[in-house]
Amino acid sequence: MPNLSDIKIDHLPKFSDARGNLVVAEFCNYVPFPVVRLFYIHDVPINTIRGKHAHRRCRQYMICQTGRVIVEATDGTQTRKIELCSGQAVLIECGIFTSETYVDRDTVLLVLCDRPYDRDDYIESICEPKAKA
Amino acid sequence: MPNLSDIKIDHLPKFSDARGNLVVAEFCNYVPFPVVRLFYIHDVPINTIRGKHAHRRCRQYMICQTGRVIVEATDGTQTRKIELCSGQAVLIECGIFTSETYVDRDTVLLVLCDRPYDRDDYIESICEPKAKA
Repeated sequence: MPNLSDIKIDHLPKFSDARGNLVVAEFCNYVPFPVVRLFYIHDVPINTIRGKHAHRRCRQYMICQTGRVIVEATDGTQTRKIELCSGQAVLIECGIFTSETYVDRDTVLLVLCDRPYDRDDYIESICEPKAKA
Repeated sequence: MPNLSDIKIDHLPKFSDARGNLVVAEFCNYVPFPVVRLFYIHDVPINTIRGKHAHRRCRQYMICQTGRVIVEATDGTQTRKIELCSGQAVLIECGIFTSETYVDRDTVLLVLCDRPYDRDDYIESICEPKAKA
């Protein structure tokens, strides 16, 4: 079982000038799995909470691309609140429940995944068994 | 040499409700290479043009995440202007010069790459040889 205290915030390299901001992630330095899927979430009303689930097997690397998001992570015992600003990222291991509060109107959250979408991979309640039957 | 007329716009699946928009890309359906690096560009002043180069070997998959961007692509003979809206994407093969005009203030452009960053991979001028010595 991953330990919540192991979660660390990555600060991705950002290159800014008059033409805007460019943020880079070389996967070998940050993402400990081959990425096969991504999704991103945008235009979320301020203070909306999304997520509220864990994954049985899927590992996710969450990048707050713009704006701010508060990731609340729990393993059923411990809970941690992690505020991510633009260009910051966290690895969420499977079995960790998260919910994401969208703080700024322009928040874009990008999530990199090590597995294709699988409805059966979701754990909606912390009371459900975490191991896939 | 890739043919500019082969470039097609992908429309990534989008799931919208009162909580905002979620856009998904399963790589097996859209991205014809293993992704090892990404970068994204945001907070670009309206009508700024970025890019203006090709790559000798790097293949790129460009996703307009929010806003709008006009990708001007040329192989030195033909030129095509491709307008991407939120959730639309194009594959840019190596050897194709592109410049990107950021149309909306909130445009975020995500670029997936098949290679780590390499300064020597850039071709800044269309007169430079395209084959890596």
